[in-house]
Amino acid sequence: MTVGIIMGSSSDWPTMKHAADMLDMFNISYEKKVVSAHRTPEMMFDYAKEAKNNGIDVIIAGAGGAAHLPGMTASMTNVPVIGVPIQSKALNGLDSLLSIAQMPGGIPVATTAIGDAGAKNAGILAARILAVNNEEIYQKLLDYTSSLEQKVEDMQNDLNS
Amino acid sequence: MTVGIIMGSSSDWPTMKHAADMLDMFNISYEKKVVSAHRTPEMMFDYAKEAKNNGIDVIIAGAGGAAHLPGMTASMTNVPVIGVPIQSKALNGLDSLLSIAQMPGGIPVATTAIGDAGAKNAGILAARILAVNNEEIYQKLLDYTSSLEQKVEDMQNDLNS
Amino acid sequence: MTVGIIMGSSSDWPTMKHAADMLDMFNISYEKKVVSAHRTPEMMFDYAKEAKNNGIDVIIAGAGGAAHLPGMTASMTNVPVIGVPIQSKALNGLDSLLSIAQMPGGIPVATTAIGDAGAKNAGILAARILAVNNEEIYQKLLDYTSSLEQKVEDMQNDLNS
Amino acid sequence: MTVGIIMGSSSDWPTMKHAADMLDMFNISYEKKVVSAHRTPEMMFDYAKEAKNNGIDVIIAGAGGAAHLPGMTASMTNVPVIGVPIQSKALNGLDSLLSIAQMPGGIPVATTAIGDAGAKNAGILAARILAVNNEEIYQKLLDYTSSLEQKVEDMQNDLNS
Amino acid sequence: MTVGIIMGSSSDWPTMKHAADMLDMFNISYEKKVVSAHRTPEMMFDYAKEAKNNGIDVIIAGAGGAAHLPGMTASMTNVPVIGVPIQSKALNGLDSLLSIAQMPGGIPVATTAIGDAGAKNAGILAARILAVNNEEIYQKLLDYTSSLEQKVEDMQNDLNS
Amino acid sequence: MTVGIIMGSSSDWPTMKHAADMLDMFNISYEKKVVSAHRTPEMMFDYAKEAKNNGIDVIIAGAGGAAHLPGMTASMTNVPVIGVPIQSKALNGLDSLLSIAQMPGGIPVATTAIGDAGAKNAGILAARILAVNNEEIYQKLLDYTSSLEQKVEDMQNDLNS
Amino acid sequence: MTVGIIMGSSSDWPTMKHAADMLDMFNISYEKKVVSAHRTPEMMFDYAKEAKNNGIDVIIAGAGGAAHLPGMTASMTNVPVIGVPIQSKALNGLDSLLSIAQMPGGIPVATTAIGDAGAKNAGILAARILAVNNEEIYQKLLDYTSSLEQKVEDMQNDLNS
Amino acid sequence: MTVGIIMGSSSDWPTMKHAADMLDMFNISYEKKVVSAHRTPEMMFDYAKEAKNNGIDVIIAGAGGAAHLPGMTASMTNVPVIGVPIQSKALNGLDSLLSIAQMPGGIPVATTAIGDAGAKNAGILAARILAVNNEEIYQKLLDYTSSLEQKVEDMQNDLNS
Repeated sequence: MTVGIIMGSSSDWPTMKHAADMLDMFNISYEKKVVSAHRTPEMMFDYAKEAKNNGIDVIIAGAGGAAHLPGMTASMTNVPVIGVPIQSKALNGLDSLLSIAQMPGGIPVATTAIGDAGAKNAGILAARILAVNNEEIYQKLLDYTSSLEQKVEDMQNDLNS
Repeated sequence: MTVGIIMGSSSDWPTMKHAADMLDMFNISYEKKVVSAHRTPEMMFDYAKEAKNNGIDVIIAGAGGAAHLPGMTASMTNVPVIGVPIQSKALNGLDSLLSIAQMPGGIPVATTAIGDAGAKNAGILAARILAVNNEEIYQKLLDYTSSLEQKVEDMQNDLNS
Repeated sequence: MTVGIIMGSSSDWPTMKHAADMLDMFNISYEKKVVSAHRTPEMMFDYAKEAKNNGIDVIIAGAGGAAHLPGMTASMTNVPVIGVPIQSKALNGLDSLLSIAQMPGGIPVATTAIGDAGAKNAGILAARILAVNNEEIYQKLLDYTSSLEQKVEDMQNDLNS
Repeated sequence: MTVGIIMGSSSDWPTMKHAADMLDMFNISYEKKVVSAHRTPEMMFDYAKEAKNNGIDVIIAGAGGAAHLPGMTASMTNVPVIGVPIQSKALNGLDSLLSIAQMPGGIPVATTAIGDAGAKNAGILAARILAVNNEEIYQKLLDYTSSLEQKVEDMQNDLNS
Repeated sequence: MTVGIIMGSSSDWPTMKHAADMLDMFNISYEKKVVSAHRTPEMMFDYAKEAKNNGIDVIIAGAGGAAHLPGMTASMTNVPVIGVPIQSKALNGLDSLLSIAQMPGGIPVATTAIGDAGAKNAGILAARILAVNNEEIYQKLLDYTSSLEQKVEDMQNDLNS
Repeated sequence: MTVGIIMGSSSDWPTMKHAADMLDMFNISYEKKVVSAHRTPEMMFDYAKEAKNNGIDVIIAGAGGAAHLPGMTASMTNVPVIGVPIQSKALNGLDSLLSIAQMPGGIPVATTAIGDAGAKNAGILAARILAVNNEEIYQKLLDYTSSLEQKVEDMQNDLNS
Repeated sequence: MTVGIIMGSSSDWPTMKHAADMLDMFNISYEKKVVSAHRTPEMMFDYAKEAKNNGIDVIIAGAGGAAHLPGMTASMTNVPVIGVPIQSKALNGLDSLLSIAQMPGGIPVATTAIGDAGAKNAGILAARILAVNNEEIYQKLLDYTSSLEQKVEDMQNDLNS
Repeated sequence: MTVGIIMGSSSDWPTMKHAADMLDMFNISYEKKVVSAHRTPEMMFDYAKEAKNNGIDVIIAGAGGAAHLPGMTASMTNVPVIGVPIQSKALNGLDSLLSIAQMPGGIPVATTAIGDAGAKNAGILAARILAVNNEEIYQKLLDYTSSLEQKVEDMQNDLNS
């Protein structure tokens, strides 16, 4: 596997699926796992520590509320970790965003936007990271960029109809 | 040791010292350690897992920003964990407060106020927890409560002078 | 009774019930009462002052908005008080969280997360506090911790199906 | 005494003094007391319950952080209570404001702005309340309003010099 | 009329009605008017300036978003003005609360909670203000206080059933 | 005069001066006045109502806290009104920003950033508005845009030195 | 065309339509386009750079979340740019508001309220800007102001019925 | 050059220097440039568009307030872009964080913490990204991780001395 998508609960999957969809589009292999920082801390440690050995080049971690999964994973691996703040019930993901983004110096987490858009961007960011040394993925990213422009053109027609 | 005071950095000590001061006043033994969730995750795991065996009855954990130490410690022990949000530089501890308080169901952290007052209250809360089965500490708490009333009376004289 | 669950209004019960459910699971006796800081201040005072004498070892207090019940109760007893911020209508519980957590030095409240997860954690935290001197409850907490791990495994199967 | 100014700590006096200054200007008698909701709850209860009998027509209560003094006082008297949010250290008084303003239906607190301006306005508001049935105070308020206009004129000269 | 209830739009009435209901209960006469700070500034000026002459002893003003009605009214009368922050669409009334509460020194507005509870409390606060010199209203307030206690007792039965 | 710069207090001048400096640079005539929504509501009304007749084409209004001056001015004139949120003491201008920006439909205020940058931009925005029909000012704006680019080049040299 | 209405996505149109409706009412010609800062940066650059040449006198730009369209457009034209913060999913438009309003000194964006009211006001603000040199539009604005007053009168009747 | 560090103003350098320091430590070549989204949009476009061709594998972009530089850069390149929120004057970087993190789906920015810690982490994150295909940098990251542990040990000695 090239990318590991982990999340604290299966209820995060409807959000995190957007990351998987992008990886599918870029033809990047991935695995998805429920790994909870709080309920299965040892599994999380093992996952993070073995990621590199297991061929994981990028980890995408989604979590909500006091969202510790991305930061804790990043503290036990040197693989780049992308954190996706899940939209929480009471505070709409502001707590998730701050818990993921405000990491102390020394342990970086690449934080994305709250919710679906953030998960989608996590998938694209993983592709950009892998594309640093992979021309094929880079070409796919160029195609994707073009498709975004096309989408805007379609919207324009929509607006005028 | 009865209480373990842990913090992510020695720079948190000026805040956490207020917890230690209260424990000193209640004559409760404690140890203080720098244990960083992000820089020394394994030490944190060992600390949390062995706390009970090492005679720790209550853990007080201070952390700032994306404050993961209290929640992660609470996920690896069943000893009560009190979390003190350290006042952070940019967001004044609002990030610390949300990262500590907004824990998912299953793993409780007893969160106190941001900063010095919160650390002080963590020390008193530890005493209240221990006093559930310790009459001596309970008496000291009653004395402390009386001293608070006296302090208000002194303030009143101050105000009128 | 060992634990007292109090709340400002019967409309808080759907949230606070999650605390009661956990206490039921840990086989801890409790009573539940509507005690309003603002509408029945004297009842609150009597409740707090007599808690210890009535065999209450831990108080769980839920309140929303300008949530004064946990802090006021904590000021009139030396029993540990756990405060649960109820999700309020306009500000989603941010007001409740700040009104409960930001206590001045001297009077601690063990604050949990906003809403259902916070109430559930209040029940578990009460169990952890009682387990400091109760091996039976401690064993039940260990079992509960294992059940959380199992739940993650089930979720994993769910995700893969 | 006509107005009671109460505050949780003598450290609130530099703020609350602005209320007293306005009452002095309007020639309204007042007393000032340190009454802490958390450290001296019984004194607070007695104060609130006896306010009317002691000739207090309006109460001005200042408090910071989890600011319970105004709301609790308002729950034990039917005298109008004005709440002044003291600027707190970490959250700059946003916690104080929400803890005072977000009272549940049934117990009103007349909340003013955070800090010195709020205390000053508490003094003026007390005068407006008393002026409902006091022509003398009402005339003084009219004079004060004129002085504000004059002050703006002075500022204008200042700006042009 | 004794109390003037004003609001920026008829869409605020479902909220402001709670103030009127309380005044009805206390048998206090009132008028209700749509007076918009922004759409009818001159009507607002006339209303505020003539309030005292028209026998208005207290003004209750509800407004949402950039809520200028309470503060502007307070700047053109010396009658006590109570401001009710209407729950706004995007920011849930946080904007309304700050726009009403954060008045500069010199012009007080008695701010209540956001939404229905705040409107209800505005009605009660008006009664408390009038009760300073009206024993009949004061007695009704005492009755109301008792009814709140009774309501809590009813809730308790509810909870136990 | 072409532009009117108004502010609630002479203490706002150090901020508002940045607007004046830009107008000086673009050679646009302006007047500056202390006009307080709350202390001199009638002066504000007169100012707004007579602005057009007095040759004022754009109004720049600075205010802090419950910042009513820009919105109230905009409600009494059809001249474009630019609102500058002054950085307030307790809430750093977040209250000012919301009080100015969150205007109801019907009365627009062109809101800028909090503080000095916002005042500077108010001056430039006024120039852009006037440049719609004034080629000379438009040329000056083009020059200014070029100067910004030059400034970045200078910074680059700075950074490398 | 006189006014250019641009937005990042066709999903912003239900909000931005309120700007168009106002321009229709004032009989001001406009065009509407989907121009995305992030998906079609070059189209945005061309649009902004050619706006003046294409007869665009005012640009209204709506965007949500990390809302870059208004500020980026303003950096490449000297035509006045009005920014409308679209109400975002997770943070209700607070992110949009800050991303649009908090521009650095040098590049002004005339920010309006979040959502529909803000879009409506953008249309009116454009009219006010154009009215600086157009008596016909100015007369229409006077009519509109009168209609607002009439609307309040209608609401009053509504309230009384 | 392997990494491009860009910032909107030379005043951001004291923060961004922390990113450069880390790259120095990992022996990764970089260039630093002042590139302003708002003052030099064309330079920014050219920089982003030519980054890949110029051998830039990762871009680190720092910006404050309405921070558009990271997001706009990310929209014109497929190189991974790391965004560092500079601590702003009025809102302490909350505006910067939201403007950078809340990107729409399609254009990812890897956001770090506000201020110095975030800049430092941006440097480390760049190293992690490059280490995906560079064993030498990966070894240096392992060494760095060890040094963090050592630092905690030193702090512990500090605390005990």
